[in-house]
Amino acid sequence: MISEPVLLLDREKCMGNIKFMAEKAAKAGPDFRPHFKTHRSAEIGSWFRNFGVTKIAVSSTDMAAYFAANGWDDITTTIPLNIRNLEKVDKIAAGINLNIDIVNQEAIDAAGKGLRNGTGVFIEIDTGHHRTGIDAGDFAGIEKLLTKIDRYTNLTFKGFLTHSGHTYSAHGFDEVALIHRQALEKLSRLKEYFTGRLGYFVISTGDTPSCSLMDDFGPVNELRPGNFVFYDVMQYYIGACSAGDIAVALASPVLAVHPERNEILIEGGAVHLSKDFATDRNGQKVFGLPVPVLDNGWGEPYRDSYLKSVSQEHGVISAGSEMINNVKPGELIGILPAHSCLAANLMKGYLTNNGKIDAL
Amino acid sequence: MISEPVLLLDREKCMGNIKFMAEKAAKAGPDFRPHFKTHRSAEIGSWFRNFGVTKIAVSSTDMAAYFAANGWDDITTTIPLNIRNLEKVDKIAAGINLNIDIVNQEAIDAAGKGLRNGTGVFIEIDTGHHRTGIDAGDFAGIEKLLTKIDRYTNLTFKGFLTHSGHTYSAHGFDEVALIHRQALEKLSRLKEYFTGRLGYFVISTGDTPSCSLMDDFGPVNELRPGNFVFYDVMQYYIGACSAGDIAVALASPVLAVHPERNEILIEGGAVHLSKDFATDRNGQKVFGLPVPVLDNGWGEPYRDSYLKSVSQEHGVISAGSEMINNVKPGELIGILPAHSCLAANLMKGYLTNNGKIDAL
Repeated sequence: MISEPVLLLDREKCMGNIKFMAEKAAKAGPDFRPHFKTHRSAEIGSWFRNFGVTKIAVSSTDMAAYFAANGWDDITTTIPLNIRNLEKVDKIAAGINLNIDIVNQEAIDAAGKGLRNGTGVFIEIDTGHHRTGIDAGDFAGIEKLLTKIDRYTNLTFKGFLTHSGHTYSAHGFDEVALIHRQALEKLSRLKEYFTGRLGYFVISTGDTPSCSLMDDFGPVNELRPGNFVFYDVMQYYIGACSAGDIAVALASPVLAVHPERNEILIEGGAVHLSKDFATDRNGQKVFGLPVPVLDNGWGEPYRDSYLKSVSQEHGVISAGSEMINNVKPGELIGILPAHSCLAANLMKGYLTNNGKIDAL
Repeated sequence: MISEPVLLLDREKCMGNIKFMAEKAAKAGPDFRPHFKTHRSAEIGSWFRNFGVTKIAVSSTDMAAYFAANGWDDITTTIPLNIRNLEKVDKIAAGINLNIDIVNQEAIDAAGKGLRNGTGVFIEIDTGHHRTGIDAGDFAGIEKLLTKIDRYTNLTFKGFLTHSGHTYSAHGFDEVALIHRQALEKLSRLKEYFTGRLGYFVISTGDTPSCSLMDDFGPVNELRPGNFVFYDVMQYYIGACSAGDIAVALASPVLAVHPERNEILIEGGAVHLSKDFATDRNGQKVFGLPVPVLDNGWGEPYRDSYLKSVSQEHGVISAGSEMINNVKPGELIGILPAHSCLAANLMKGYLTNNGKIDAL
């Protein structure tokens, strides 16, 4: 019996998501370098091998070390290099093909002088998300970085990497398509400008909404989405997946039912799901969607019900009439997470019908 | 050298916060049962012994087990009993004085029938926060629960427990004082009504804003605040502490400086700080406040600067002119967290000038 919160993983849904994205990439043309920051699990990572995946992306040096130790020998780290951490980076680069992410001269100099082992280098490009990266139109700035990379024999320029993370606040196909098209236009100009100087190079992009919904990737020749492996309520509201595609649910014991205000208290809070929320059509913050837990997985979301707030260990569900009338203290319900990456990071592992799966 | 994000703990500030609250409780009258959900650390817990603390509160069964294993023999769990988890609860109750939190008949029956070891029972009362609990004015409902508790010889009624968590959305002394006064009025009526039937019983309350700012606790005879041990930006904005009282800061390597938009990228994101935010006077979401890291702790927050967004591993600081002009890639800055409880839960330990401190 499940007595405490645990992250349920539906292996079939997860496999279906991997298959969908691998086939999408194969059909559209770009190489497929899935991002493993969402599942953070050697075992789930191994499932990708069945679909011909041989190279991956990660979002931290520790994740790179973990997957390198688990047989992955071509890894791109998609966060600008932390130059205080060169020793760890160098150790990983000694054993595998490691690509680092660079956005400034300081990092190139530090890596060029500080790494004894060769690494590939991606310059991160900002196509409008404004988290980091060189502006896609700043050809002079990019040129300077390329010149600096050339000075160091241990650094090999591989290409440009971008993350159109502003699709995460889009609603629906048209908004995602617009952001995607604008990014592709910028990347096309970049490709045109630098092809003469550089010959072949990689253009890598990876937001899950664009990768899920779009078919034409223009100049992009590498896709590295991550969240799609599980999807979540945020992707569902964006329109990047259906609720039935979401492959993880937090099994949560019901602690109390408050019919006087149509609320249900669960053990399942910020330490299990995170404080991240999706926003529904009415502007309501949704920390997750409740589903009935079945013998073999879980059912469709309860009607008119959502996780309205979380504190450290508690979650409060605003329950529709079907849910409030049927759910009792001591029962188990599932919560489809607003953001599966953060829930997976907090729960550190999964429960499937075939037993437990560990994660970093 | 610190090469990766780590949670710095200023031992003197933390000790000062513990001393302040222990003396406040002693002066005001109520017993002091600090909540250990924020620090989750046996070592930090031991510091409370110097201030005469012998009983504590926790927010999960695992935390109760951890602190019981570390010498605490009087523990209240302040989340409604999860009746799927009785085996673990029973094991803890075998060794120490454990109090459980009850909000419904189902839990009383399950505990009464399922626990072989005796426990104390608190009925959780809702004074307006509406997370859970019996409405403070529902004397008939409370009476029913009391009658049911009486049926089980292994259950001993201890008192009423409430959490005025709605003070967390208050701004300033007056708003906290109003919520506090309204809660005390409800608890006074409760005390008056049940004293004839019950004689002596505990009335326990514990939100950090009220405990920090108020001096009169009326009928309350037990205080169990938790967050005050570290405080955080949320408490600072409420007015419950000064920025100088905040005892933890996430040491975060600077990855990139973007002067064109006055932004600084750090390694320090949702997996380190959580996605929780405080709201400043201008309605701006603040995920943390940046401070310079010094040899011996950290300085005052940088002027006009705040952590404006976090993704999984990245944080983006909106930087004032002093900060943007002085901070360089590869340097280390500190982030005072919006919510220290969640940052501590994610980081699983602390770094002090005297070395590392472990946590659950």
